Amino acid sequence: APMATVLDGKKIAELCRRDIAQAVSQLKEKHGRVPGLAVIIVGARPDSQTYVRLKKKAAEEVGMRNFESTLPETSTAQEVMNEIDKYNRDPDVHGILVQLPLPQHINEKKVLETISPDKDVDALHPSNIGRLFSKGYGTRFIPCTPKGIVEICDRTGIAIEGKNAVVLGRSDIVGLPAAKVLLDRNATVTICHSKTHDLAGIVRTADILVAAVGRAQMVKGDWIKPGAVVIDVGTNPVDDATKATGYRLVGDVDYEAAAQVAGFITPVPGGVGPMTIAMLLSNTIESFRWWMNDTEAS
Amino acid sequence: APMATVLDGKKIAELCRRDIAQAVSQLKEKHGRVPGLAVIIVGARPDSQTYVRLKKKAAEEVGMRNFESTLPETSTAQEVMNEIDKYNRDPDVHGILVQLPLPQHINEKKVLETISPDKDVDALHPSNIGRLFSKGYGTRFIPCTPKGIVEICDRTGIAIEGKNAVVLGRSDIVGLPAAKVLLDRNATVTICHSKTHDLAGIVRTADILVAAVGRAQMVKGDWIKPGAVVIDVGTNPVDDATKATGYRLVGDVDYEAAAQVAGFITPVPGGVGPMTIAMLLSNTIESFRWWMNDTEAS
Ligand SMILES: NC(=O)C1=CN([C@@H]2O[C@H](COP(=O)(O)OP(=O)(O)OC[C@H]3O[C@@H](n4cnc5c(N)ncnc54)[C@H](OP(=O)(O)O)[C@@H]3O)[C@@H](O)[C@H]2O)C=CC1
Ligand SMILES: NC(=O)C1=CN([C@@H]2O[C@H](COP(=O)(O)OP(=O)(O)OC[C@H]3O[C@@H](n4cnc5c(N)ncnc54)[C@H](OP(=O)(O)O)[C@@H]3O)[C@@H](O)[C@H]2O)C=CC1
Repeated sequence: APMATVLDGKKIAELCRRDIAQAVSQLKEKHGRVPGLAVIIVGARPDSQTYVRLKKKAAEEVGMRNFESTLPETSTAQEVMNEIDKYNRDPDVHGILVQLPLPQHINEKKVLETISPDKDVDALHPSNIGRLFSKGYGTRFIPCTPKGIVEICDRTGIAIEGKNAVVLGRSDIVGLPAAKVLLDRNATVTICHSKTHDLAGIVRTADILVAAVGRAQMVKGDWIKPGAVVIDVGTNPVDDATKATGYRLVGDVDYEAAAQVAGFITPVPGGVGPMTIAMLLSNTIESFRWWMNDTEAS
Repeated sequence: APMATVLDGKKIAELCRRDIAQAVSQLKEKHGRVPGLAVIIVGARPDSQTYVRLKKKAAEEVGMRNFESTLPETSTAQEVMNEIDKYNRDPDVHGILVQLPLPQHINEKKVLETISPDKDVDALHPSNIGRLFSKGYGTRFIPCTPKGIVEICDRTGIAIEGKNAVVLGRSDIVGLPAAKVLLDRNATVTICHSKTHDLAGIVRTADILVAAVGRAQMVKGDWIKPGAVVIDVGTNPVDDATKATGYRLVGDVDYEAAAQVAGFITPVPGGVGPMTIAMLLSNTIESFRWWMNDTEAS
């Protein structure tokens, strides 16, 4: 059977980061300063610490400035908001990211609303969501994971316009904005979720499938339309005694089976994940340009 | 052939307005004041004047207070914004509506952004759009036409959850928010537009069809799935020599043919149109309650 072309997110993300590094050095020459990214982490969840370390490392590697605030698990919402406010007022900071989830006792949305919409590189402020989901106001930031999905397609020469795209999941950070960015690229978009009937039948109509449900290998090989583009956002730990950690990560798609049918497929790990971090850097660059009033392309 | 049940929007809107009139009189008793709606019209487009007159009449009939500003076609954006600001600060005004379109020389979005998000009964402010298209921040206002569509279903006992809904059109005021409110009611939603391939084939999968394209009778009878719910938002003038005006209004759906196949269908006129105005009043009531800190249901 013909095997799908693997969409190597790790490699594509490397290319993105190389372009970004070049842009940073050009911007530094032009403006005498570099983009700055501030990351706030509250508490000590190991997965959050890993993500923050990866983001920090990526920012440093492309020559950005890095700001990090580590606040104790017991912090109040006000203490987190004070930290955000510090960065809101700091002219060396162009992107602010609060690592989620926040501890249970903190109202996440209340905190996110205090991030300056003009430094909101995760695009979670309501006014930035409103700008993304309407015309005319102008989109300010595109959420990183959906932006990474489109970037994978663009860098691989995969056309989106006129295609039937099916998005599994409707979350604030992946499903819903992914549907919107595909719609903006003129795909016909179907949004599915836990109440969808005949999921397999709908997935079979997809020229482009985005799976973001968080259920290990839920999408079966025979759900995939021959030649389809399969973007697997899911990152699910499953028990694996052969690993030192006792687990490994799998996607929402049964990769082995789907790769026999699909035209293109992202692996997990090494697919969408690395792109998400690269797009965070991309948003920070765009923000820097905006603050510098630098409208020059690329 | 069995004929579809006609979804009589005029009658359903009447029921809504009766409920709203009752709520207004109860709120008046309780708070010693009534909800107030301010409508701003710029210029003298006959269609806009008609809409404003209908909205004003509807507000008066349910016992609301009415504020109207008629500004000349030559007004500057600043003059319109000053008028908005007056109503933003007026405690007797709970809903502000700027009749669109504004004259060409005025930046519409800049004007809409000055409406207080807490009086934005048309739900066009970016922060209200953001609240609609995300979880957790809490939806502030639902745009009137999409809200009317769901109200028609609810008052007719049409279930939405688990159904396949197809929305034709992706505009800010109808298509996109209609898709979101149907998604919020757990429909599986497909969004189509001018770049969609095989529109007929996709429409044939719809248990619920919302047509909002603005093309007279584009949707043919044989595109309709037997028993489907057909919501026709389109309002298109077509030449008609038998009318005094020289035209009549038709929807985006070929009504005569579709009514032979559908389970339910909205006529044009007398379908979604009257509901849109009733929902404007409903949003104004909700706004009044919010300003009065009145969380009591109904
Ligand atoms: N690679 C990366 O960079 C990133 C990866 N992720 C991963 O992506 C996945 C999704 O994340 P996120 O969007 O935050 O998850 P959420 O839990 O917020 O959303 C999951 C969505 O999937 C839907 N869903 C759940 N079960 C089913 C089912 N059986 N059939 C159809 N739909 C279903 C839910 O439906 P309903 O709304 O009805 O509940 C919901 O809309 C996770 O595995 C996460 O780890 C997330 C972010 C970034
Ligand atoms: N009854 C009521 O209360 C109201 C009625 N209306 C009526 O609803 C209709 C739509 O209004 P509105 O949303 O403002 O219109 P817009 O013109 O803003 O949007 C029309 C949408 O239809 C899509 N479209 C156009 N042609 C086709 C085609 N051939 N096939 C598929 N899709 C197509 C467009 O696609 P693309 O994005 O690719 O251009 C666009 O998304 C109008 O007739 C309007 O008068 C509107 C508001 C309220």
